[in-house]
Amino acid sequence: MTICALATAPGGAIGIIRVSGPQTLEILSRVFTKDLSKAQPNTIHYGHIKSATELIDEVLVSVFRAPHSYTGEDSAEISCHGSRYILSKVIALLIANGCRQAGPGEFTQRAYLNGKMDLSQAEAVADLIASTNQATHQIAMSQLRGHFSSKLAQLREQLLKLTSLLELELDFSDHEDLEFADRSELMTLAKEIDNRVTHLAKSFEAGQALKQGIPVAIVGKTNVGKSTLLNRLLKDDRAIVSDVHGTTRDTIEDIIDIKGITFRFIDTAGIRQTQDEVEQIGITRTYAAIEKARIVLWLIDAQPTSEEIQEIQEHCNSKSLIIIQNKIDKTEEVQISHLSPLTSHLLKISAKKSIGIEELEQAIYEAADIPTLTENDIIVTNARHYDALVRAHDSIQRVIDGLQIQLSGDLLSEDLRQALDTLAEITGGQITPNEVLGNIFKNFCVGK
Amino acid sequence: MTICALATAPGGAIGIIRVSGPQTLEILSRVFTKDLSKAQPNTIHYGHIKSATELIDEVLVSVFRAPHSYTGEDSAEISCHGSRYILSKVIALLIANGCRQAGPGEFTQRAYLNGKMDLSQAEAVADLIASTNQATHQIAMSQLRGHFSSKLAQLREQLLKLTSLLELELDFSDHEDLEFADRSELMTLAKEIDNRVTHLAKSFEAGQALKQGIPVAIVGKTNVGKSTLLNRLLKDDRAIVSDVHGTTRDTIEDIIDIKGITFRFIDTAGIRQTQDEVEQIGITRTYAAIEKARIVLWLIDAQPTSEEIQEIQEHCNSKSLIIIQNKIDKTEEVQISHLSPLTSHLLKISAKKSIGIEELEQAIYEAADIPTLTENDIIVTNARHYDALVRAHDSIQRVIDGLQIQLSGDLLSEDLRQALDTLAEITGGQITPNEVLGNIFKNFCVGK
Repeated sequence: MTICALATAPGGAIGIIRVSGPQTLEILSRVFTKDLSKAQPNTIHYGHIKSATELIDEVLVSVFRAPHSYTGEDSAEISCHGSRYILSKVIALLIANGCRQAGPGEFTQRAYLNGKMDLSQAEAVADLIASTNQATHQIAMSQLRGHFSSKLAQLREQLLKLTSLLELELDFSDHEDLEFADRSELMTLAKEIDNRVTHLAKSFEAGQALKQGIPVAIVGKTNVGKSTLLNRLLKDDRAIVSDVHGTTRDTIEDIIDIKGITFRFIDTAGIRQTQDEVEQIGITRTYAAIEKARIVLWLIDAQPTSEEIQEIQEHCNSKSLIIIQNKIDKTEEVQISHLSPLTSHLLKISAKKSIGIEELEQAIYEAADIPTLTENDIIVTNARHYDALVRAHDSIQRVIDGLQIQLSGDLLSEDLRQALDTLAEITGGQITPNEVLGNIFKNFCVGK
Repeated sequence: MTICALATAPGGAIGIIRVSGPQTLEILSRVFTKDLSKAQPNTIHYGHIKSATELIDEVLVSVFRAPHSYTGEDSAEISCHGSRYILSKVIALLIANGCRQAGPGEFTQRAYLNGKMDLSQAEAVADLIASTNQATHQIAMSQLRGHFSSKLAQLREQLLKLTSLLELELDFSDHEDLEFADRSELMTLAKEIDNRVTHLAKSFEAGQALKQGIPVAIVGKTNVGKSTLLNRLLKDDRAIVSDVHGTTRDTIEDIIDIKGITFRFIDTAGIRQTQDEVEQIGITRTYAAIEKARIVLWLIDAQPTSEEIQEIQEHCNSKSLIIIQNKIDKTEEVQISHLSPLTSHLLKISAKKSIGIEELEQAIYEAADIPTLTENDIIVTNARHYDALVRAHDSIQRVIDGLQIQLSGDLLSEDLRQALDTLAEITGGQITPNEVLGNIFKNFCVGK
């Protein structure tokens, strides 16, 4: 079946409608002023899209031929004027002539089914489109280019080697009727595989933080300048963001990019609300914010009481705590010695006058403690992959335990087979149930 | 100078970056994995966009060669993954390599300056992109295809003919020293030209209504069901609109398309607010809404008093009035005889139960009294064109007056020259001052 969908967001100067499937050029030739059935691959054609009664648009049609297209099928992209009316008319016309409206991610799903990419690469496409900063972009690009897939292929090689070693041992024990052979080589290999799988699984936490933004809470007494600081951080960032992005969306309200890493200011609305209500930081909502944060900015403008210091100490135990003296242009310097249970360093800023903000951003960036990523680093950001890695680790762990208690090879090989199958789920090397595919592609945008 | 800009709205699966200017292929070759300097026109190239330090995206680059491109210059379109991060990175990279960020409409302005289209066609591009219904789409498409331009060319021919007839008369009078010749042919021609110009100018009112939506007011007593009716009309329409448009924007809140014509419900928020305040329709805000409306829907659910009828009669004098009895499923039928000063026809609906809504929409459509447009109809929608037409009419009117009072030909030819120049402003046939160009293109979207 030939599918079509709008591939660009509505509202621009240009709108692109994608068509893919065996009938692409036949259907297009019916609605386009030129016959495209013999069009050369990778060529662009100028003409009009027209229905029986109406000239709909002047367009450019790009023609791609199977298998050298994104989906691996014959396909085309129609570049229209970006009017909602035109785009909806063209799509309606294509549907009237035999296309079906594509579902979310259906073009990429076809690319996967036609062997143009594996499943983890297909998922990287969605991640790439959703990437908003350097880190998430680089992770998605690395995954799209198959670095994760080849890491998994290496693991598969090692697991197969372990399997053949076990089979050798089985043959050996069958024929010679001996005790178990020396299993140290098997154990070494199994542990090496497990280390690698565990390393990948562990990267998921960092991956999630990078993908969703590292949670930061700003806490402090009323009128200490929490909102001013947040606005200052947002504004400094927004200036760059809005220049580049063109439009500002509500959802990026409290998201800040510092040196390619996204920080998410959690529940700050809640904290801001409480300014009118309570005169101390020891309130439930602030604690909840601290609880969710990885980094806590504690804003003070005077010597905190020892109770306050104790409260912060209790709640920020496992967090990166940055203590900041605000209003440095107006208030007396806080004595660092009072804060010694918490920190040996105090940042001094004026949120209002934009003093010390760059140093603060640097401190936030360092507190995130994200290793610098290179193109070849593999960070797992997908929960489905993480789940498969954890299950593969369990299987391999059972192999290791089995080796230790001298289980027989045929019992161990079952766990090895499971580890192989589980890792294969990630790239879709095994036959992937439709339900799983449906879950993977339902979160794509339509048109990709 | 080579310019670049994002040509699609941010947020889709695909983002298109346009590049145009003499250095297009040179600059692209620096950031793309393939050398495009010898690329054939109208071909598509797969590769990567990369900076010195970072692989930014897998892209398709479409190559166009001067003069066979939109702008008439060498140009290219880069089809990227629609991530904001990627799109901003690619644009930054192009700028770092010698491009300049394009201003609003700059690609189309170059198309105009390079003789690919005249000024009224360039303006039609913006109208086409903004078109939201069949009527505005058809008007813009007709203008883009040059129908308005050729109508103006015809007028120009006639004005030139008039000029040469006047010159002939001048020669004649010079040499023969006679009285003025018979001027009836000149008068006929001048009047014909003026009729055509006036006809075009008059189409502006309809054009504005089509472009901005025909203003409709819903009035009626509290609790008569005004909001319910509006929501019913919006909802019936929205179901279609949101299916097609993907997203619903706030600005289309009170805009309804009926059979390709846009209706704009004016100031209804104001009317809705007053429901709690006053118990009769005779309130200032309602009158203000009626004042701005072209069509008034008067909603009743019981016999109106004669005072109410009189009030409506006074205020709806010049409007299309549709009287509607709501809650037809629950209330007694209103006697039409009481309404006879206003109408001979009463629509019966239930906004809540969706009874009679289709008939109401038909009545609204008919009340708009918009002639069915064909592709060749010329409707002026642009205030700049209207202004020029009105000034041309003034000049021609002066010619007609002059002919009547037997002014000499050399005095008349000055007005004729002015009419010619004024009409030429529309297509930009005369040298167009930069300031005027700036005003025309500043309202375009960037990337077009």
